Amino acid sequence: MKIKLEHGAGGEIMEELLRDVVLKSLSLKSAGGIGLDALDDGAAIPFGDKHLVFTIDGHTVKPLFFPGGDIGRLAISGTVNDLAVMGAKPLALANSMIIGEGFDGEDLKRILRSMDETAREVPVPIVTGDTKVVEDGIGIFVITAGIGIAERPVSDAGAEVGDVVLVSGTVGDHGIALMSHREGIAFETELESDVAPIWEVVEAVAGAIGWENIHAMKDPTRGGLSNALNEMARKANVGILIRETDVPVRPEVRAASDMLGINPFDVANEGKVVMIVPREHAEEALEAMRSTERGKNAAIIGDVIEDYRGKVLVETGIGGKRFLEPPAGDPVPRVC
Amino acid sequence: MKIKLEHGAGGEIMEELLRDVVLKSLSLKSAGGIGLDALDDGAAIPFGDKHLVFTIDGHTVKPLFFPGGDIGRLAISGTVNDLAVMGAKPLALANSMIIGEGFDGEDLKRILRSMDETAREVPVPIVTGDTKVVEDGIGIFVITAGIGIAERPVSDAGAEVGDVVLVSGTVGDHGIALMSHREGIAFETELESDVAPIWEVVEAVAGAIGWENIHAMKDPTRGGLSNALNEMARKANVGILIRETDVPVRPEVRAASDMLGINPFDVANEGKVVMIVPREHAEEALEAMRSTERGKNAAIIGDVIEDYRGKVLVETGIGGKRFLEPPAGDPVPRVC
Ligand SMILES: Nc1ncnc2c1ncn2[C@@H]1O[C@H](COP(=O)(O)OP(=O)(O)OP(=O)(O)O)[C@@H](O)[C@H]1O
Ligand SMILES: Nc1ncnc2c1ncn2[C@@H]1O[C@H](COP(=O)(O)OP(=O)(O)OP(=O)(O)O)[C@@H](O)[C@H]1O
Repeated sequence: MKIKLEHGAGGEIMEELLRDVVLKSLSLKSAGGIGLDALDDGAAIPFGDKHLVFTIDGHTVKPLFFPGGDIGRLAISGTVNDLAVMGAKPLALANSMIIGEGFDGEDLKRILRSMDETAREVPVPIVTGDTKVVEDGIGIFVITAGIGIAERPVSDAGAEVGDVVLVSGTVGDHGIALMSHREGIAFETELESDVAPIWEVVEAVAGAIGWENIHAMKDPTRGGLSNALNEMARKANVGILIRETDVPVRPEVRAASDMLGINPFDVANEGKVVMIVPREHAEEALEAMRSTERGKNAAIIGDVIEDYRGKVLVETGIGGKRFLEPPAGDPVPRVC
Repeated sequence: MKIKLEHGAGGEIMEELLRDVVLKSLSLKSAGGIGLDALDDGAAIPFGDKHLVFTIDGHTVKPLFFPGGDIGRLAISGTVNDLAVMGAKPLALANSMIIGEGFDGEDLKRILRSMDETAREVPVPIVTGDTKVVEDGIGIFVITAGIGIAERPVSDAGAEVGDVVLVSGTVGDHGIALMSHREGIAFETELESDVAPIWEVVEAVAGAIGWENIHAMKDPTRGGLSNALNEMARKANVGILIRETDVPVRPEVRAASDMLGINPFDVANEGKVVMIVPREHAEEALEAMRSTERGKNAAIIGDVIEDYRGKVLVETGIGGKRFLEPPAGDPVPRVC
């Protein structure tokens, strides 16, 4: 077996690699709490009466600077968001940089300043790091790890029949913006990535309805909304029914998606959260999301149902229904 | 300015990049305790009556499999050792892999199994991770982050005049083994890297003399013993006097060093610790080190002195003295 691009694309092929190779090769996978076998967004380790949440993400996005962000902003946001969707307030970040020989020093500064700016939005300090330089012409890879504190960690597996599904804003922005930029597709208003830390969105909802009422959470990164919802349905062994017309998609994103032949549900978002909450708290959660800068366009998009366990159904505008399949991998390569 | 290999080689040129670019571009650098500005082996964050220690390291060693170890063993050991020299018992690790397209699946399994084996030696679980695949023919980079718990963190800046310097075993093994292997230098007994987790060595000393009596600690990785001692002297503003003949060096390592024209004091070790303790505890610390598998060849190698503040002196076998300069960078490229 040779490793292919799809093995890193966040969909079913990656999941296979993780289950068949990674999980099987390792034997010590938990420090108590949520460990590696859960394949959640991060790990949660009981610590006193709280939980320590721990996560890591490598960032290899191309190009390094793209409409709406850059690899530095992406690295901080990606790690903060993995902590946030585990229910953890970000405590500190670590920054490992692998740099190709000949990389421009000014670009390095620009990336670091962007990391700093993004970290200040949260706010969370960058407390440790590492720098390696290699001969390979890779540009730069930025790998960020994060630790956070959760009063009560939220897994991605807690959906219950009767619950309601929310998304914190428009879907597809990061992947489609990146792809349009690469393909040179221009619009009157430039398509921009949504890359941003969304701890404030999660915190607002928890403040409104309580951590115990966030049944499941996930950030729809690689593989997009389709992948996130399928994982949530499969892990909780419930069905999820989404109303297609209720899922917010920017008109420019929809137009570009059509031109590119890519479903905006299948591509990475980098500043969004999918949340599953009890029906009686759905409106309150929605309001809390909408009260935040990054959650203005939040919407209730569907329900957790008893039928079709492990599957995601989409109700189309004209009343039909089809399965929303998890993508084999994100159709946009080098997206994060 | 263009990034050069030396910017990642762990010596003075890297230190310059860290001070002039990284530290200046970032503004939130501490969560309390030991933050980024200390440029220590990791960060320490006060947590209840203990400290949480956090560290990250990217591994880009070439070749991936080398005498005595491989990139997987290196990644686990490197991160465990950064925790250990901060005085922290390893709690959990994170594993980010960036893989070049076409990489062999069996090699990936071999690396993961080696990580598992090394993690079990500590023991410490791998609780979270990330996988990215890139088109670049990089082979594989393994980036590991770690968290640990310290009752009382040990910095690399606490040396006091009158203290004694210990090293936990032979110096230069990793760098010289790697370089000899690359250059095809063969000996009757193969030169092997010392790559190993050394938490047990640190724990044994702390058990014997108490954490409060380990004044300073560092693992002499990139830039070797020379770099570690110079950093310790500079940060504590003390002089360090080393007796060259007391520093343990394997005869094969010495022979290969001579052939390669490389000073074994200047190259990376991956299973060693340099410790500075009060004179009255030195013998006890030495015995504790020697009672462990990885500390069998430990030795007392020098003293912390009042003169030559910020500098390291070496007393040669014939009674002369010279400065031990910090290397510009590790003379062995892609060493870790
Ligand atoms: N090389 C690896 N070693 C150990 N665990 C891994 C590795 N790669 C991925 N994982 C684990 O697999 C699960 C899925 O990883 P994935 O990267 O899809 O999650 P994510 O971080 O939520 O998504 P994204 O990286 O797109 O934000 C996570 O639990 C992660 O910890
Ligand atoms: N890209 C970076 N961003 C933030 N901090 C960094 C970065 N690179 C290095 N550092 C910090 O600089 C200091 C020195 O790094 P260095 O890698 O030499 O330490 P180390 O981890 O002890 O050594 P080694 O990596 O050889 O084991 C550390 O405090 C580290 O946190």
